[in-house]
Amino acid sequence: MKGVLLAIAIAIIPVSTTLAADDLPGEAAPTNVPGAHYPRILPDHRAMFRLEAPEAHSVVVEIYGQTYPMKKDADGVWSVTTPPLVVGFHYYSLILDGVHVNDPGSQTFYGTGIDSSGVEVPEPGVDYYHRQDVPHGDVRIRLYHSKVTEKWRRTFIYTPPGYDEHIDKRYPVLYLEHGSNENETGWTFLGHANLILDNLIAEKKAVPMIVVMNNVYAHRPGQTGSAPQIKSPLRPDFPAFEAVMLQDVIPMIDATFRTIPDRDHRAIAGLSMGSNAALRVGTGNLDKFAYIGGFSGGMNGLHTEPLDPAAAFDGRFKDAAAFNAKVKLLWLGMGTVEPAPFPAAIGLFRKMLDEAGIHYTFYSSPGTAHEWLTWRRDLHQFAPILFK
Amino acid sequence: MKGVLLAIAIAIIPVSTTLAADDLPGEAAPTNVPGAHYPRILPDHRAMFRLEAPEAHSVVVEIYGQTYPMKKDADGVWSVTTPPLVVGFHYYSLILDGVHVNDPGSQTFYGTGIDSSGVEVPEPGVDYYHRQDVPHGDVRIRLYHSKVTEKWRRTFIYTPPGYDEHIDKRYPVLYLEHGSNENETGWTFLGHANLILDNLIAEKKAVPMIVVMNNVYAHRPGQTGSAPQIKSPLRPDFPAFEAVMLQDVIPMIDATFRTIPDRDHRAIAGLSMGSNAALRVGTGNLDKFAYIGGFSGGMNGLHTEPLDPAAAFDGRFKDAAAFNAKVKLLWLGMGTVEPAPFPAAIGLFRKMLDEAGIHYTFYSSPGTAHEWLTWRRDLHQFAPILFK
Repeated sequence: MKGVLLAIAIAIIPVSTTLAADDLPGEAAPTNVPGAHYPRILPDHRAMFRLEAPEAHSVVVEIYGQTYPMKKDADGVWSVTTPPLVVGFHYYSLILDGVHVNDPGSQTFYGTGIDSSGVEVPEPGVDYYHRQDVPHGDVRIRLYHSKVTEKWRRTFIYTPPGYDEHIDKRYPVLYLEHGSNENETGWTFLGHANLILDNLIAEKKAVPMIVVMNNVYAHRPGQTGSAPQIKSPLRPDFPAFEAVMLQDVIPMIDATFRTIPDRDHRAIAGLSMGSNAALRVGTGNLDKFAYIGGFSGGMNGLHTEPLDPAAAFDGRFKDAAAFNAKVKLLWLGMGTVEPAPFPAAIGLFRKMLDEAGIHYTFYSSPGTAHEWLTWRRDLHQFAPILFK
Repeated sequence: MKGVLLAIAIAIIPVSTTLAADDLPGEAAPTNVPGAHYPRILPDHRAMFRLEAPEAHSVVVEIYGQTYPMKKDADGVWSVTTPPLVVGFHYYSLILDGVHVNDPGSQTFYGTGIDSSGVEVPEPGVDYYHRQDVPHGDVRIRLYHSKVTEKWRRTFIYTPPGYDEHIDKRYPVLYLEHGSNENETGWTFLGHANLILDNLIAEKKAVPMIVVMNNVYAHRPGQTGSAPQIKSPLRPDFPAFEAVMLQDVIPMIDATFRTIPDRDHRAIAGLSMGSNAALRVGTGNLDKFAYIGGFSGGMNGLHTEPLDPAAAFDGRFKDAAAFNAKVKLLWLGMGTVEPAPFPAAIGLFRKMLDEAGIHYTFYSSPGTAHEWLTWRRDLHQFAPILFK
């Protein structure tokens, strides 16, 4: 029966594993499925892609709208080496005879609205988001019933190392939101929020905290559409998500985890669309949150019209003295190579804050794009300031 | 800026969502990505697949080795309706101009060695593995360092509803293993072990228990290869995995969860390759386990040579009286439409047990294949018998 075993094994192993890894340049991307040698990352951050497709007429790699046509060799193997890529994580597709498909060599990650291929270009000399030899917290997958949406929802919850052992200890909570067309899995599987916290806690740079990673998409019964409602740049407008946070998530977390259930021990932050959501929910509920973070997003979505601090967002920024006295931290971050319209939109949001006299911290992430490495850096900068 | 938002949204939504769902026959498969209307399942269990690929020359659906060629219409949309499929979950690929790729309409699941498309053909009138309005346990994603492999490993751990509230209560533990080319995520995302237990516990059919879902692949430092060592059908031979279980996993679980750490409150079961692993680790360590389950696998892998109870597996079955006195439950299950070589291999393993006089329970799952619905049914039958 050995033939059967072997036949099954051959059928399932991606073609790239048939090459000897030692002879290949660079390193297999850390985002590959186990055993897949392609895509590969070269020391200068060029990426090599490869697909065996002798019958195909055209194969193109597409990374965030940029296309790299592949060339076929005599054996029917298509390949391309990109110019140096920005460090960090990039969703990508292969366009195979006109159809966007996943690369069989890549793991998939929920983003761009599908389970998508992704390639990580490692940042040299950095280990703050790697799994290190330190105590690790758990990430819990939890189902909860929402009174707001009248549906079951899922959330990922990080508990820090020691949470189960120190049964008399109570913890502050950071609520962390994902971006557009992503979901509650992103901050764990792409952001490595759990590893970032594990490492910061081991170094005693951050206090042990619970991190709740929600799904930002929420609709009341009868509402439709795949995106949260963002009706206007001038009014707070994640109403179903805000209600889910206030009526479902925070009470559930405070009832079933050993939290310190007050505003001084509760933070909210998010990325991109989730930054808009976190800033709106946070600044709109200062009785609930003392620490608020926005990673690669203001409260004005992708809009690039000037904002009047006296009128925008229900006037919540017009009394800077009251706001500054109450908010322990308003923190914004952005990568230096983020594409339009993010720099303009976030710039106008900051301009409004400046005009209003609102205190905030701004972090500029050198050389990173509107992608997960920026947000890992944001969390790595933001978490140590919390709850101190 | 609305144009930018809209352009991004259109770029990421699978093409099938552009049709009105109300006009389509059947139901979108529950395994689709949010918003994708294809694949669809008809009431008679035929499945409809669809792909917009005007430039492609050939598109074929492949489900567990069976191929279904798609036909192109005037708009460049390829489609096929299969004959009625076996109920349950099926990994599948699209073969697009000769290349096996995922269907953009499907979620992906780690199986067949990659993140693969999968289609669930719902079993009518059955809700034991669905998310119901009952209390739900958490599934924890845990990292632990292995002394055996000298690497960090990941395990998924189900804690039953009430685990965090009843801090004086201790629980029995079921260790549950995945199949070939799957991993520790399978029993949660495909097997729905958490939902099966939630439902059984709510009905008071099973006692609340912790379920530990391991990764069966394990290698000592310097070992290579992607499969566990299965050197011989006649000797127990998952040595690295067995050592990981005994030296790493069980001590870690007993040290960090409120378990009842004795053999009468410890069970082990698995599916296919994981059935072989569970049966070998279980029957080889009767001081550790009193309940042992094998779902769609014996201890003889895919081998179909007769087994001598006096000699096979180090003779551990030759003293039936001692074995039967010690083992509270040896439980085997198999689907009635599993392909070769499973019926023959499992039949020979059972024949050896019968000849030896070993007591065991056998469950035959009507009309299901070597796939997850068989294993959900197995768990649904097996879990209620445990720890009573």
